[in-house]
Amino acid sequence: MTSASTTSTAPRTGAAARPVDPPGPRRGLGVGEYTLAGGFWGRRQQVNAAASIEHCHAWMERLGWLANFDAVAHATTSDRTPRGWQFADSEVYKLLEAIAWQLGHAPTPELEERYDDLVTRVIAAQDEDGYLNTRFGHVGQLPRYGDLEQGHELYCTGHLLQAAVARVRTRGEDALVGAARRAADQVCEEFGPQGRAGLCGHPEIETALAELGRALGEPRYVDQAALFVERRGHGTLRPIPLLSPAYFQDDVPVREAGTWSGHAVRALYLAAGAVDVAAERGDGDLLDAVARQWDAVVGRRTYLTGGMGSRHQDEGFGEDFELPADRAYCETCAGVGAVMVSWRLYLQTGDVRYAELIERVLFNVVAVSPRSDGRAFFYSNPLHQRTAGSDVEADAENPRAEGGVRAPWFDVSCCPTNVARTLASWQTYAVGLEPDGVTLLQYAAGEIDVDLEQGVLRLRVETDYPDAPTITVTVLEAPPAAGALRLRVPQWCGTATLGRDGTATHRVEPGLAVALETMAAGATVTLTLPLDPRLTWPDPRIDAVRGTVAVEVGPLVHCLESVELPPHLDLDRVQVDAVAGVRRGADGGDVEVRLTQPDRRDESGDGPAMPYLSSSPRSASGPADWIRLTPYHQWAERGPTAMRVFLPVRPST
Amino acid sequence: MTSASTTSTAPRTGAAARPVDPPGPRRGLGVGEYTLAGGFWGRRQQVNAAASIEHCHAWMERLGWLANFDAVAHATTSDRTPRGWQFADSEVYKLLEAIAWQLGHAPTPELEERYDDLVTRVIAAQDEDGYLNTRFGHVGQLPRYGDLEQGHELYCTGHLLQAAVARVRTRGEDALVGAARRAADQVCEEFGPQGRAGLCGHPEIETALAELGRALGEPRYVDQAALFVERRGHGTLRPIPLLSPAYFQDDVPVREAGTWSGHAVRALYLAAGAVDVAAERGDGDLLDAVARQWDAVVGRRTYLTGGMGSRHQDEGFGEDFELPADRAYCETCAGVGAVMVSWRLYLQTGDVRYAELIERVLFNVVAVSPRSDGRAFFYSNPLHQRTAGSDVEADAENPRAEGGVRAPWFDVSCCPTNVARTLASWQTYAVGLEPDGVTLLQYAAGEIDVDLEQGVLRLRVETDYPDAPTITVTVLEAPPAAGALRLRVPQWCGTATLGRDGTATHRVEPGLAVALETMAAGATVTLTLPLDPRLTWPDPRIDAVRGTVAVEVGPLVHCLESVELPPHLDLDRVQVDAVAGVRRGADGGDVEVRLTQPDRRDESGDGPAMPYLSSSPRSASGPADWIRLTPYHQWAERGPTAMRVFLPVRPST
Repeated sequence: MTSASTTSTAPRTGAAARPVDPPGPRRGLGVGEYTLAGGFWGRRQQVNAAASIEHCHAWMERLGWLANFDAVAHATTSDRTPRGWQFADSEVYKLLEAIAWQLGHAPTPELEERYDDLVTRVIAAQDEDGYLNTRFGHVGQLPRYGDLEQGHELYCTGHLLQAAVARVRTRGEDALVGAARRAADQVCEEFGPQGRAGLCGHPEIETALAELGRALGEPRYVDQAALFVERRGHGTLRPIPLLSPAYFQDDVPVREAGTWSGHAVRALYLAAGAVDVAAERGDGDLLDAVARQWDAVVGRRTYLTGGMGSRHQDEGFGEDFELPADRAYCETCAGVGAVMVSWRLYLQTGDVRYAELIERVLFNVVAVSPRSDGRAFFYSNPLHQRTAGSDVEADAENPRAEGGVRAPWFDVSCCPTNVARTLASWQTYAVGLEPDGVTLLQYAAGEIDVDLEQGVLRLRVETDYPDAPTITVTVLEAPPAAGALRLRVPQWCGTATLGRDGTATHRVEPGLAVALETMAAGATVTLTLPLDPRLTWPDPRIDAVRGTVAVEVGPLVHCLESVELPPHLDLDRVQVDAVAGVRRGADGGDVEVRLTQPDRRDESGDGPAMPYLSSSPRSASGPADWIRLTPYHQWAERGPTAMRVFLPVRPST
Repeated sequence: MTSASTTSTAPRTGAAARPVDPPGPRRGLGVGEYTLAGGFWGRRQQVNAAASIEHCHAWMERLGWLANFDAVAHATTSDRTPRGWQFADSEVYKLLEAIAWQLGHAPTPELEERYDDLVTRVIAAQDEDGYLNTRFGHVGQLPRYGDLEQGHELYCTGHLLQAAVARVRTRGEDALVGAARRAADQVCEEFGPQGRAGLCGHPEIETALAELGRALGEPRYVDQAALFVERRGHGTLRPIPLLSPAYFQDDVPVREAGTWSGHAVRALYLAAGAVDVAAERGDGDLLDAVARQWDAVVGRRTYLTGGMGSRHQDEGFGEDFELPADRAYCETCAGVGAVMVSWRLYLQTGDVRYAELIERVLFNVVAVSPRSDGRAFFYSNPLHQRTAGSDVEADAENPRAEGGVRAPWFDVSCCPTNVARTLASWQTYAVGLEPDGVTLLQYAAGEIDVDLEQGVLRLRVETDYPDAPTITVTVLEAPPAAGALRLRVPQWCGTATLGRDGTATHRVEPGLAVALETMAAGATVTLTLPLDPRLTWPDPRIDAVRGTVAVEVGPLVHCLESVELPPHLDLDRVQVDAVAGVRRGADGGDVEVRLTQPDRRDESGDGPAMPYLSSSPRSASGPADWIRLTPYHQWAERGPTAMRVFLPVRPST
């Protein structure tokens, strides 16, 4: 594996532009190759473009994060302390990346102008030698790379590079791309084989350098990415008080680690960069190491939602099976990171398990974060909210991770822009293109339009998935030898069925189903995925949710919100009948669970005792109620509420 | 309530010296009024004196925390950065307090010399106006009180004052007491009614000023304590990024708070100071507020061990019923704080529930921390250790709170010296003296010798509690009208019995049992507390341990260590039979549980899946083994081990 994809047409800017383009036999869809027709993801992409991008821009203007660039450009830093955290620059770059992807498939004059204005201000702050950071290296600041552990300088540069990748692939060279090139050159000078053997406390530069190297045909950037990946894990970074070196993955080399630990976003970004390097070098050992880590984490350190990161303390992974529902950190950005790693592993291996996890994360982590209007966000995504939070101030920054209420902006506000860039490039994850055909990995209504080497392939996808079970794919146009049409059948399906061109349907097993051996114009296939609500039981080694069960419907985890409960039921006392406890409501729409609860203990006795009992707690015995569940991605949309994904099971008596 | 205790004799230095001496009808024992004869606490006090004090001293010398004082004294701060954290001074003071209490009941020349040497070095660093802190106010340092949120200056001063309290009560005025007086005067100048309306981010000065005011007869100090207590809760402190104002209890005034939240040690120290102030002022509202908070926390935010603080993130309380076993923070210092508050509430109310909690905390939090040789400590005290930690380096500082192995010293090393001062003054908590008699609250072999107003009272206590069930108390000497002898009967007792002077025993209920209406020389009573192992079930609202049960024996929580398990049993899979699952071993000594586990899942299949199942997990069916439990305070004494207090219950089938 040493050269560009064998299936992709000659690199073209525009429709085929995609965030990840490694060498290998498989490529993802370009963001302009799938025109979404509304639906779950189409609507979110519209709201992202119409509201979230403007919202993020306005907040960064208001808080002075953009003015940080102006201050450096106009040499006024000596009389102005930079605003925000040391990684504020990166938010501007992530917003630029989001805009660039959006411009790649749905340009508007307003968005073009927004992009141009931002780029002008950003690049004005670049130093002559390419260094670009508003908090280091200028009068009254720490010297460049003066705090590699916590300064986030290379992390910020990485996001600049990723924005440039989006731009150069969708539109070609421009001022931002030029600035990124000079910044990357400066990094290679500073940290290259002859430079200092340093590392950034927060990985990101690795995957960014690799991708910019691909996009610009600069092997030096890929080499530098490899150097950063290999340099890590040898205790180069100075320990941060009270945190172990695992916090920033400097304890064990990537190729030796058995799992991911420490800060979840850092671990995931680093793993993404390692897959990039492995793909470039044909380094099977490194690829296998990351795949092994993925298996270990998905098998033992991942929430039902696909969320990762069990601990608030260090925003980190916990031990195996340490998966508390209430204190689940499950940072939105870790969801983005999980998509990044999984997608790169899919591209290298073609294993649809990676796409399966991507679906779970997209629906149950990424889609949870933005409020339906795109102007407030979750940062952490717990699976249990013990008490209904108080409503946040609609117009204020918020602490980052508590309370069960989406906030318009955060002190540390990495998640909104990360969601924005992910939603703006959603199309790429939907389809895998291979020499012998096309694989639909995620389902959304719209039209796929790809220039294959053989010619143009156009597919129409009709579906209301995940709200309706059928996905119909029609081949509108296909070149000769277009190859097969394959459909991913999720693991949660027991009885998926596939029908071709009006023939009788037949059952298909989870994994990959070949829907058409050869795509030809006019062919139609319909995949039907069962959407009956189903019970899902946690592995008994997950102590925190022993004796509970969750409800899922298709790819959507569901939850119980306290706003649904009548006064006689308490979220912290209800029990569900796990034998006949879940159904579709009368109209076939809502999902309902059958709840009851033990009598309330009399708490007006002689003062509260400790919450430990000398006999086994009582089982519920009262009359049961059918209560509506909420898709987890919609929780707290109706205001503050307590919530739980895992429902205590009524003990058998 | 405006004057000194009605029962205490005129203040005397020496035997009756005690850490807490509020006005009111009740006093605790002086540290010199109970000579322990070995036993659980006597042995620990000996190890503390013989090893821990020297150990702490040596580490603080080695790390330069003592040299910080020398540097200030000799005006060399400009060429020397202070070592350790900003609260390092306080560790020296806590060590001094421990030594002073120990000298109060078991002086040795070596300890006298250690005390004198430390005092000489400490007081040499005091500024002319009484200010004493090695990190602020000198050349090259922040100005005095330059970082009230995080600087810990008043916190450090508070511990200086508490050391002086121990000294003046056991020995009278000396150089340390004089230094503390000047430091307290400086605080009153700076923060008094005419001074700045500031607060310390970490409470401690409140209780310290109140007690020093009592000890020296300085009402101004008590007034200043009241001022600090009332000043808190009004948002005076600047918010710390990413932490809410609740972190340092500046969100709600003490008298309005319904529970404790935020950093646990801070909340508890503040509550102790509030009780002190309430006692001095006869402020029933303030006392009731703290009592209400105690009820709320003990009823909903306290671990079975008596541990408090559910979160690593902010070392803080969680929500009600948020009590994860594995990530229980349960800082040793929070145990000390819980004893401080509970003891003050007991002195004001006479309610033995407070003494009950003290017993639980002393046996299952405080006693857990020091290794049996007194030279390594736990900082946090989780109730579940998922994986056996690696052994710590015997001779190195350690991160503070992870890994399940006691460490010789910590980067933040508040716990060892806090344990040392608590163990050195253990006697005070054992007995309450009231006008109409004596109440034994904690049981330990030894001799009690008190000068009552009426004359000398001497009691002999013979017991191997908590290893043996009987406690025999003999009145060796009693003045006329010595009053009653009351014994605390723990709440966990179903069938305690009491026998007097050879008469038939009779059953006594939990609470207070009157053993003798009038104490007279020669009288003997025997209390027998059942020590059968018993099962304790968590309130079903504690999600983290649903479906589990714990084993207790007397006041001792027990745990299962992985080192006890045969190879075919896994700590994360075992299930206990909750009907007939616990017994005494063959020799009547060890406590054993009957464990079995489901067949191991075949994990060599087609790669690990997510840890969520489409059917209910299997119940255990294999043959059962009887496995020995460990008293929780002894866990990890045999080296690294995984451990759990709450044992999953085998589901009934």
